[in-house]
Amino acid sequence: MNFDNRPIGVFDSGIGGLTVLKHLVALMPQEHFIYLGDTARVPYGNKSAETVQLYSRQCAAFLREHDVKLIVVACNTASALALEDLRQSQSIPVIGVIDPAARSAVASTRNGHIGVIGTRATITSRAYEHSIMQHVQGTAPKIHSVTCPLFVPLVEEGWLHSDATTFIAREYLRTLVDAHIDTLVLGCTHYPMLAPVLSTIVPDAELIDCGQCAASEAQSLVKPCTPTDQHGTIHAYVTDQTPAFTALAESFLGFPIGIPERVVIDGPDERKATS
Amino acid sequence: MNFDNRPIGVFDSGIGGLTVLKHLVALMPQEHFIYLGDTARVPYGNKSAETVQLYSRQCAAFLREHDVKLIVVACNTASALALEDLRQSQSIPVIGVIDPAARSAVASTRNGHIGVIGTRATITSRAYEHSIMQHVQGTAPKIHSVTCPLFVPLVEEGWLHSDATTFIAREYLRTLVDAHIDTLVLGCTHYPMLAPVLSTIVPDAELIDCGQCAASEAQSLVKPCTPTDQHGTIHAYVTDQTPAFTALAESFLGFPIGIPERVVIDGPDERKATS
Repeated sequence: MNFDNRPIGVFDSGIGGLTVLKHLVALMPQEHFIYLGDTARVPYGNKSAETVQLYSRQCAAFLREHDVKLIVVACNTASALALEDLRQSQSIPVIGVIDPAARSAVASTRNGHIGVIGTRATITSRAYEHSIMQHVQGTAPKIHSVTCPLFVPLVEEGWLHSDATTFIAREYLRTLVDAHIDTLVLGCTHYPMLAPVLSTIVPDAELIDCGQCAASEAQSLVKPCTPTDQHGTIHAYVTDQTPAFTALAESFLGFPIGIPERVVIDGPDERKATS
Repeated sequence: MNFDNRPIGVFDSGIGGLTVLKHLVALMPQEHFIYLGDTARVPYGNKSAETVQLYSRQCAAFLREHDVKLIVVACNTASALALEDLRQSQSIPVIGVIDPAARSAVASTRNGHIGVIGTRATITSRAYEHSIMQHVQGTAPKIHSVTCPLFVPLVEEGWLHSDATTFIAREYLRTLVDAHIDTLVLGCTHYPMLAPVLSTIVPDAELIDCGQCAASEAQSLVKPCTPTDQHGTIHAYVTDQTPAFTALAESFLGFPIGIPERVVIDGPDERKATS
């Protein structure tokens, strides 16, 4: 048998990636994980591609220092804007959350109407459209994409079931309801927390959790740890100790992970000032 | 007469400080201004004091390179967490937005019930309470503080008059309505954009715009430019070219300023990693 006891590295702009880590741990409980949340610079969703690429390279470099066997980019914005850049610069496998979810959406739809919701950066990048179209065989589905920038702050406020959240979600999803989508890609790692509200608005649509899809792909890519009857370890790091991370981590992950260690990852800035 | 033709420096975590710049320009149209929005790391309101202080020092250092005669910290979070730190390290005057607004609130209240709304970092710092108490003569007012973290994303989405915004504002301001406040400090530079909605919820309260108060203090602190019949100049810089800045700048400022120049300000990180 062929085993690899190195940890799996996971990074996100903040806390959202914990919903991805949750599925990774559920699927591969014996693996060791290094999680990095770039909480000093969160969110990535409203920043430029160049800036997201720089921050992603710094996150990946930190994970490599921990000798990881795989990097999971557990952030839709970074997956949309920085994945190719990371793959070119890394000698280990790097997976994002978009391609696995796109494949799952194509397999799920029956009527050919797929909804995609995400941050402005993710939706503007059209990464889901491109990825879905690559997986299509036969008739191309109609993809209905909507930016939902208020969902992340609503989740981080813990307003998961408030009337305001339902009101805003109805506004955002209006065109998707009208289009009779039967599949809704939750294109942001925060959005699974809103699944109960979203289900009431599009009750007939299958919700695609990008973290769940990415976990399956990760499992298929790495050699497993040597089998034991022990659970693996999780080491969590953040770039800023913020109240939100500590308060929300358990609800995002499903179990407590204690206080993460703060680290500094922003090395020399490779960007040049431009006018 | 004694004149000083150096510009006035203004910085904020992003775009909100433009509501402060608006009042500075209105009050001192002949002055030259350098505005810096740290859009690569916005927002500051959910970050730790240590991180906000580091970022603020980097912003101030950038403004000093432009030989400014005064630094206006046009961000409530940075004013709450980093003003003393900046004052100790700078040889020119540095003013924030909290103290001028606190003084104005004390002068405004008749019934002694002052409401303060702001980001989590600003409210948690209790900076407004401390500042208001320093200006009180006679009976101490009762200060009612509320965090309103969803207001910034709502403003940045342009949801200034939506039903969702009114709904959320009613939720946030419920205790202030019950307390019969007659003065409401808008303790975040985004909040003046919500003044029409807030006025409907607390119609009898005077709204204190921290930018307007800070502009008056700035005027009293600097030697003016040599009088001419020309308007002064505004040079705007950002640390990331984001769609939001370009889209919102004119509505925040009241007039167009063109596309800001992108600059890199994050030098060597003085922070130490801590566990």
